[in-house]
Amino acid sequence: MSQNEKQQKQTAGNAAGGGQKPRTAISPTRAEDYPEWYQQVVKAADLAENSAVRGCMVIKPQGYALWENIQRGLDAMFKATGHVNAYFPLFIPKSFIEKEAEHVEGFAKECAVVTHSRLEAGADGRLVPAGALEEPLIVRPTSETIIGATYAKWVQSHRDLPILINQWANVVRWEMRTRLFLRTAEFLWQEGHTVHATAAEAQEETRKMLEVYADFAENQMAMPVIKGRKTDGERFPGAVDTFCIEAMMQDRKALQAGTSHFLGQNFAKSCGIQFQNEQGALELAWTTSWGVSTRLIGGMIMTHSDDDGFVAPPRLAPQHVVILPVERDDATRAAVREYCEQLRAELTAQRYAGEPVRVTLDTRDLRGGEKTWGWVKKGAPLRVEVGPRDVAAGSVFAARRDTGEKRGVPRAEFVANIAATLGEIQDNLLARAKAFRAANTRIIETESDLYSWFTPANKDKPEIHAGFALAHWNGDPAIEARVKKDLNVTIRCVPLDDEVAGITGNLTAGRCIFTGEPSKQRVVFAKAY
Amino acid sequence: MSQNEKQQKQTAGNAAGGGQKPRTAISPTRAEDYPEWYQQVVKAADLAENSAVRGCMVIKPQGYALWENIQRGLDAMFKATGHVNAYFPLFIPKSFIEKEAEHVEGFAKECAVVTHSRLEAGADGRLVPAGALEEPLIVRPTSETIIGATYAKWVQSHRDLPILINQWANVVRWEMRTRLFLRTAEFLWQEGHTVHATAAEAQEETRKMLEVYADFAENQMAMPVIKGRKTDGERFPGAVDTFCIEAMMQDRKALQAGTSHFLGQNFAKSCGIQFQNEQGALELAWTTSWGVSTRLIGGMIMTHSDDDGFVAPPRLAPQHVVILPVERDDATRAAVREYCEQLRAELTAQRYAGEPVRVTLDTRDLRGGEKTWGWVKKGAPLRVEVGPRDVAAGSVFAARRDTGEKRGVPRAEFVANIAATLGEIQDNLLARAKAFRAANTRIIETESDLYSWFTPANKDKPEIHAGFALAHWNGDPAIEARVKKDLNVTIRCVPLDDEVAGITGNLTAGRCIFTGEPSKQRVVFAKAY
Repeated sequence: MSQNEKQQKQTAGNAAGGGQKPRTAISPTRAEDYPEWYQQVVKAADLAENSAVRGCMVIKPQGYALWENIQRGLDAMFKATGHVNAYFPLFIPKSFIEKEAEHVEGFAKECAVVTHSRLEAGADGRLVPAGALEEPLIVRPTSETIIGATYAKWVQSHRDLPILINQWANVVRWEMRTRLFLRTAEFLWQEGHTVHATAAEAQEETRKMLEVYADFAENQMAMPVIKGRKTDGERFPGAVDTFCIEAMMQDRKALQAGTSHFLGQNFAKSCGIQFQNEQGALELAWTTSWGVSTRLIGGMIMTHSDDDGFVAPPRLAPQHVVILPVERDDATRAAVREYCEQLRAELTAQRYAGEPVRVTLDTRDLRGGEKTWGWVKKGAPLRVEVGPRDVAAGSVFAARRDTGEKRGVPRAEFVANIAATLGEIQDNLLARAKAFRAANTRIIETESDLYSWFTPANKDKPEIHAGFALAHWNGDPAIEARVKKDLNVTIRCVPLDDEVAGITGNLTAGRCIFTGEPSKQRVVFAKAY
Repeated sequence: MSQNEKQQKQTAGNAAGGGQKPRTAISPTRAEDYPEWYQQVVKAADLAENSAVRGCMVIKPQGYALWENIQRGLDAMFKATGHVNAYFPLFIPKSFIEKEAEHVEGFAKECAVVTHSRLEAGADGRLVPAGALEEPLIVRPTSETIIGATYAKWVQSHRDLPILINQWANVVRWEMRTRLFLRTAEFLWQEGHTVHATAAEAQEETRKMLEVYADFAENQMAMPVIKGRKTDGERFPGAVDTFCIEAMMQDRKALQAGTSHFLGQNFAKSCGIQFQNEQGALELAWTTSWGVSTRLIGGMIMTHSDDDGFVAPPRLAPQHVVILPVERDDATRAAVREYCEQLRAELTAQRYAGEPVRVTLDTRDLRGGEKTWGWVKKGAPLRVEVGPRDVAAGSVFAARRDTGEKRGVPRAEFVANIAATLGEIQDNLLARAKAFRAANTRIIETESDLYSWFTPANKDKPEIHAGFALAHWNGDPAIEARVKKDLNVTIRCVPLDDEVAGITGNLTAGRCIFTGEPSKQRVVFAKAY
């Protein structure tokens, strides 16, 4: 074990409380307490924290940098598929949200209601709400109704179609139990809202954007996903068809990471989006909506992180390489610093995935171990330590976050290979996540197997769940409801592809495990976030 | 006059209502009715519109593209000066906003107040607000208090300083009279919030960001600005010192385009931002905040546009070049289209100001005149018409939006010069705006000159104002208030530079035009948005 490594392990021991505890930077470990591990990873990586406002989070600079990278990646994909961005009001009049019956049912129960337009001094001198609004306004939980009302004005003729617009925005849903990134009262997201002349075009759009999400999840987040259709019980309120991407977290629970809705003519009807077709007749339009949110960051954390903290996939990492000068004495300090500056310049001139390599030279006056472990916990894909001996040898001491591998490398080689190394890390994270998912996905043939598969072996660790079960089901919502009640397991989706979580055979035509009735294909059962 | 030009003029005539009216695309003209001209330019350029929610606008794709370009430009400048982005809650607890006395005074009178957390069916079956909150929440009008509360937790030691964070967000101020982009209830902005160990550092930050804003306004928006300090009466509520950039619109009114506040220890005190200094003693920190908003788009419109509509400065234009195929018959259609596609590819491969040239090939099935005028009104810096004769000659027919100049150019030459041409247009817009401002700025030596300078010659056209008056003032707020009451003229700022709107001499030491008392420097009087 090198000096560097010893120092690191020591600090890790300290960070974890020292003594007999396992030497990991995060306490508890995943195995000890997964939900608490998640909170500690978010905290240790400086990604976000709870605010003074119930359920609203503060996204800290490291967390927001992830979101900026997600935005940049997705935004380019949206534009490449013909979409443009626009911005619609934060507030929705109560009467708008009431127009679509299922929709209001889905969102009225938890929304922020604006009722007044000012504060003024009350009898006791304290400020009280004043200037009551004629009609209460809802802070948008999603924007179908307000955007639909706008589209109704914009769409007159078939020549105005399609409308292909996306919005980057904040939304509010008054969730009772919140968890950083995964479920918060306010969150950031994008919501695409499109209008089409035909059902077929709208359906094609819905599927196209699902593909964009899946592509992004797998190739930028390194998070494998199953593309599928939601059952009727899990549809978006007001949608005809909801498609989703579902990922497996390391506690084997499913995370719904993005949805794309075919809204049929429901919102066109309630909002009055009509157009004159080529024959001059008036028709109702067909609409879609699709969105992903800051929840993706939660998914990324739970897919890749380990007991030492966050592991950032290189494509989205705020820092690709962190350079840590080892400044042991004044005699060598200047030479080490200069060497590091040169290394930074050389690395920054390289490109990875079409962008300049993102390099941080950390010159903070901290103990080496503290600094190193800070970056381990923040998940930087590569750390490079440079001490006087490295300067003399023209080398660097490089550590990979994903594998823990550490080795001395000639500086020129390290620089020349930087894009390839980052690519390897990215590929390794995806492969690792795929292997984990495959190992925790199984074909289930009987109801009793389903029940035992989802019944925790250790009652003291209820957070350990069994994974994805691929089973036949006859489509009966009553059975779906019973499984949910009994096991807290839901049908995540009806998969769209011939391959599900690495399994390619035995997915079609079979018999429902509950009734023996014929079933066209297996669906995915899992516990879920 | 070429065939192209005749056709355009005809269409313009039609657009303006035909007959004896001036042949402009926008009606009314600037001279006829400036405020209404502005609304019509915004509408004709498809930039924004009012929504169903009072005071909230819909920013349409063309308008939002301007905002995206503004964001990209500014964000790079913020990061180059060491700032990072983060995100803080939309909601501010009432008790937070009450903490700073001036601040609450400034914002409580017009804010959106959230009082309930759901809607439920009332006695008549209609939804009514329910789930009353224990403490009302304010939709952020600005975030000093909620961010300050967060910083109070983050800052412990001098080692935690400085904190240099920016936020891109939406804010709400319940304005009574709204105007698209210039004053809306909800608007988009960025707000920088920084914390420093010393007053000097915080003051330096305040001035540094003012310089960033001025640089951006002049060099990217082509909008010249005066940098100055606000008088006490115009300070941000809670600030010690407010600095601003002020631009002159074409109606000679001033537009405050950005502000940078030195907050002293006011918010550190009310929010509890303290740190242990190097000697171990506890000190209050020093904070700043600075912001610009979607108002910049209004400023850009009113600085450059003419009676034919919007004129976009190339640095921020959604489209640099619009290619308009002239498809007269089926025989030549394919050749014209192919030529246009090649031209697009060649132009897109060129770079202007570090970014790929933004090219739109408009193949919509519209009459040529309608299409051309659409892009004139949208303000695209360059339009290129390509007909069969251009294909045969290897040329393009290029029109500059800023000068109206139209000429045939060999295609290769047009492509090779594209960055230079866009640069010329950008420079011309700035030079033109500077000339306009210089022509409407004057040194004023007496009170009666000030009064007559700001008294409209034509009472029927009260919207025509006199411009910027540089006059000496003794610093008395009572005089400032009287001038405001009498003339609706305010002191826009106390300039920071030796050159103000092109005037370099005679700006320092003189005598107050109202009292004859000594004055250190001239201040800028103007009517304002």
